[in-house]
Amino acid sequence: MVTGSSSMMTTGLGMFSSSDHTSVIVSLNLFVALLCMCIVAGHYLEKNRWMNESITALAIGLCTGVIILLTTEGRSSRLLVFSEDLFFIYLLPPIIFNAGFQVKKKQFFRNFMTIVLFGAVGTLISFAIISFGAIHIFKKMRIGSLEIGDYLAIGAIFSATDSVCTLQVLNQDETPLLYSLVFGEGVVNDATSVVLFNAIQSFDLSHINSSIAFQFTGNFFYLFISSTMLGVLAGLLSAYIIKKLYFGRHSTDREVALMILMAYLSYMLAELFYLSAILTVFFCGIVMSHYTWHNVTESSRVTTKHAFATLSFVAEIFIFLYVGMDALDIEKWQIVKNSPGKSIGVSSILLGLVLTGRAAFVFPLSVLSNLTKKSKNQQITFNQQVTIWWAGLMRGAVSMALAYNQVQGKGSLFSRSEAKLRGNAFMITSTITVVLFSTVVFGLLTKPLMRLLLPSQKHLAGTTPSEPSTPKSLTWPLLEGGRDPETDQIDGKPNVPRRTSFGMLLSTPSYTVHSYWRKFDDAFMRPVFGGRGFMPYIPISPSDQNDDQWSLTRQ
Amino acid sequence: MVTGSSSMMTTGLGMFSSSDHTSVIVSLNLFVALLCMCIVAGHYLEKNRWMNESITALAIGLCTGVIILLTTEGRSSRLLVFSEDLFFIYLLPPIIFNAGFQVKKKQFFRNFMTIVLFGAVGTLISFAIISFGAIHIFKKMRIGSLEIGDYLAIGAIFSATDSVCTLQVLNQDETPLLYSLVFGEGVVNDATSVVLFNAIQSFDLSHINSSIAFQFTGNFFYLFISSTMLGVLAGLLSAYIIKKLYFGRHSTDREVALMILMAYLSYMLAELFYLSAILTVFFCGIVMSHYTWHNVTESSRVTTKHAFATLSFVAEIFIFLYVGMDALDIEKWQIVKNSPGKSIGVSSILLGLVLTGRAAFVFPLSVLSNLTKKSKNQQITFNQQVTIWWAGLMRGAVSMALAYNQVQGKGSLFSRSEAKLRGNAFMITSTITVVLFSTVVFGLLTKPLMRLLLPSQKHLAGTTPSEPSTPKSLTWPLLEGGRDPETDQIDGKPNVPRRTSFGMLLSTPSYTVHSYWRKFDDAFMRPVFGGRGFMPYIPISPSDQNDDQWSLTRQ
Repeated sequence: MVTGSSSMMTTGLGMFSSSDHTSVIVSLNLFVALLCMCIVAGHYLEKNRWMNESITALAIGLCTGVIILLTTEGRSSRLLVFSEDLFFIYLLPPIIFNAGFQVKKKQFFRNFMTIVLFGAVGTLISFAIISFGAIHIFKKMRIGSLEIGDYLAIGAIFSATDSVCTLQVLNQDETPLLYSLVFGEGVVNDATSVVLFNAIQSFDLSHINSSIAFQFTGNFFYLFISSTMLGVLAGLLSAYIIKKLYFGRHSTDREVALMILMAYLSYMLAELFYLSAILTVFFCGIVMSHYTWHNVTESSRVTTKHAFATLSFVAEIFIFLYVGMDALDIEKWQIVKNSPGKSIGVSSILLGLVLTGRAAFVFPLSVLSNLTKKSKNQQITFNQQVTIWWAGLMRGAVSMALAYNQVQGKGSLFSRSEAKLRGNAFMITSTITVVLFSTVVFGLLTKPLMRLLLPSQKHLAGTTPSEPSTPKSLTWPLLEGGRDPETDQIDGKPNVPRRTSFGMLLSTPSYTVHSYWRKFDDAFMRPVFGGRGFMPYIPISPSDQNDDQWSLTRQ
Repeated sequence: MVTGSSSMMTTGLGMFSSSDHTSVIVSLNLFVALLCMCIVAGHYLEKNRWMNESITALAIGLCTGVIILLTTEGRSSRLLVFSEDLFFIYLLPPIIFNAGFQVKKKQFFRNFMTIVLFGAVGTLISFAIISFGAIHIFKKMRIGSLEIGDYLAIGAIFSATDSVCTLQVLNQDETPLLYSLVFGEGVVNDATSVVLFNAIQSFDLSHINSSIAFQFTGNFFYLFISSTMLGVLAGLLSAYIIKKLYFGRHSTDREVALMILMAYLSYMLAELFYLSAILTVFFCGIVMSHYTWHNVTESSRVTTKHAFATLSFVAEIFIFLYVGMDALDIEKWQIVKNSPGKSIGVSSILLGLVLTGRAAFVFPLSVLSNLTKKSKNQQITFNQQVTIWWAGLMRGAVSMALAYNQVQGKGSLFSRSEAKLRGNAFMITSTITVVLFSTVVFGLLTKPLMRLLLPSQKHLAGTTPSEPSTPKSLTWPLLEGGRDPETDQIDGKPNVPRRTSFGMLLSTPSYTVHSYWRKFDDAFMRPVFGGRGFMPYIPISPSDQNDDQWSLTRQ
């Protein structure tokens, strides 16, 4: 992911830079206990209309920070020092993989072009506006010595939508269209921010010309396509291995272990080749839920579904807990404490730029996207546009990690130059402020806002026309639980006669692409890689005889 | 666990001491790919009568070590540097917790006294013999300057049975008695080795007298009881929280996350209080499988059972893979390469001492244990004694970690004194040799040996008398799958009339203790902490209506 400089990596994979064994044990104990607290608190606040799990974790993190600050007499608010590696190597992969594994695939691919438009062009627009605004306003404010690269980095940092936050705020079952748009945008957004960050740190920024812009575009397409391909290949390989060896005959544990390891391998390979690991692992998750998941035993299916969700859930809470605790780190605030007004000003300006930058691409691009859709039902209404704009405003752990990367890449907070030091401190503190403010305030307001703007969410979701298929498909959605990774595959059984009249072909072109894909899938892909209804039926244990019951019991 | 010195902990929780980001990524990629290879290879070798998963992983690790050694032109055979913390903080907890979670509880508690006898007294006997032998033989060989503390440390290192290996070699379903004896011994063994290690590093060894022996015994009982209590408390707390809050109504993920986190918390708390974390997490696993597991939803039950097993499985392979790669570390071998004969001699002597030390306690203590059992069926036959002796001979990752701890605690391999350096190098290389030899040779021979000594294993296992209970219990074992953590609880349904005639009370006293416990459990524990049949029946989803079917489908 972020591979700008290597000097920041001096701690290697050292997750925590505490040097004392006992203090590490103490920290881990407190962290695990806090995670348990967050889970229990989250359970009680579930029905609350304002709160969500992220805000609870942030609040608990902040409180713990205050307590530690008081007990250590102001020396430190942190138990563990934030390491980018901890975030990018251990916490992010399960979150994004699980998102791909559980995403409603049909909804996602139907809006694929819109998602890429938002994620690529939109992020560039947002980046340009925030960078341009920062250059013009901050130069007048004199907040320390920042170079052109720093301003562009600010643009990249604050145009990185936090997909983790989005997952918490939007509900896939209630608002499938919005979820797939905002979350999909967040995933593509990552590829864009990798290109932006690499570009800022490697290109000669004093000579921006058309050849660099061309190189930049080529780089983006290369990254996007190769990352996706790697993820798809890893997923298909796992499906093929499990289908050929038929592990289930021997061991559920082997199947589960292989799925987890292959997914993680795809992420790490992408990191190795400087691709967008987030895109890779996301597509690996999609392919695994389409093929691999159907090749394993029933107990492996239940286990993977819940184990991946649990891993992702714990990683998310961990991140928010950490951001909450990290926010109170005293060192950074001491540098900027002499100019509190300026600090608040910088943060407010950045928040304003984030709001403007997002508005500047959501509304025009939505209109553009609507032009290509003939059916009224598929268009994005104005209220939905406002929700998309709002739901993508949150900035989270990704922004924090990028900010630390930019500062550390240039000689850390303890830079020799006083002006440099002040500039860096402002960058960190304002990032923390924006992250906290956007997560807490925007996050708190999202649920009420959505209730206001989209009062009939369930109804809206229901209006997406059902796929042309046999009447049998009408009974399937009732049999399938809402959280089944495969609800999209309504008529997944092979050899079911399919009505594809020519009139329907013309009126709904996007369905045609889908139905061609389905034909290709049934004819070539599934026989090789397995998938629903394509595994040989070998009764091994009594559990297999209950296969049909499973569709009922799976929740 | 091992808390002797803090100077060795300078890397903190830094799992790998590689300093370059890219090399970390490369290492992780290779490691994950190798893990996948081990799983696939293990699948193919399942039916093989010699191999097991540990030996496969060791072999793959050794081959990789050779390849790396050749490609780096002899500079390094290792991708990642072994850190004790990686082992004790991340890899060991899931293995031991899963062992407790899946252990057949009735078998374990029936042999509880024998297990403690083997684990505590047996380890002390073994320790004394190995230390005494090492002092007398090595002093004559002049293999470098070793102090009395080093010889005692050698005794502690080589009397640590590797419970991970045991899990791989013995099968719980085929030989339940042997499994519970050898594995249980391994768990208690750990508590003993912690006391031994702490004693060696903290007591003044030049003045061994009766007060130290008394202190030592007191320390052991304190450790044993407090570690067990902590594990039981953590397990009960998790059962209580999940029962009271009834998380399942909302989220399977929360339940699974809470179980994992509470188990890990118990391990880390034991580490914090210098207790035996292995004992704690083992008992936490037992309590969780008895209470907590029955309070969660069906999908959580399937998920936890397989997720814990998978975690443990991957951690085990990881350890053996690493030990295989680490064995070829060139630095250590270069120091001892001038005296290959001496090196082989030291290793052979140590292997001989391990064999003698184990024989010296297994046979006498088995006879002692047989004296207390009146029923012929419950006694340990001579062939079984030989198997117990043989199956506990393997030394693994625990011995490696202890050896590194002893060496690093005294100023690392790069000690200033040449004699010291040689002594340390001999200690490490001979540990590696013993670990490799015992795992590969003893491990390979275990399966054939058991087939030879115990030809009618299944028959033997069947002779353990079934619990006095209603005829209903006869149908239960058929309904229950072999891997259900609760097979022991044959008549778990409350309010079932139980035949407890006075005659039976006298003839089988150990069952009486068990039946008193059952009464207490049903009257006081289960109403508070839940357990089989003690959760309120609230139909939430269709899955609950299939509860009885589940006993059938669970495999």
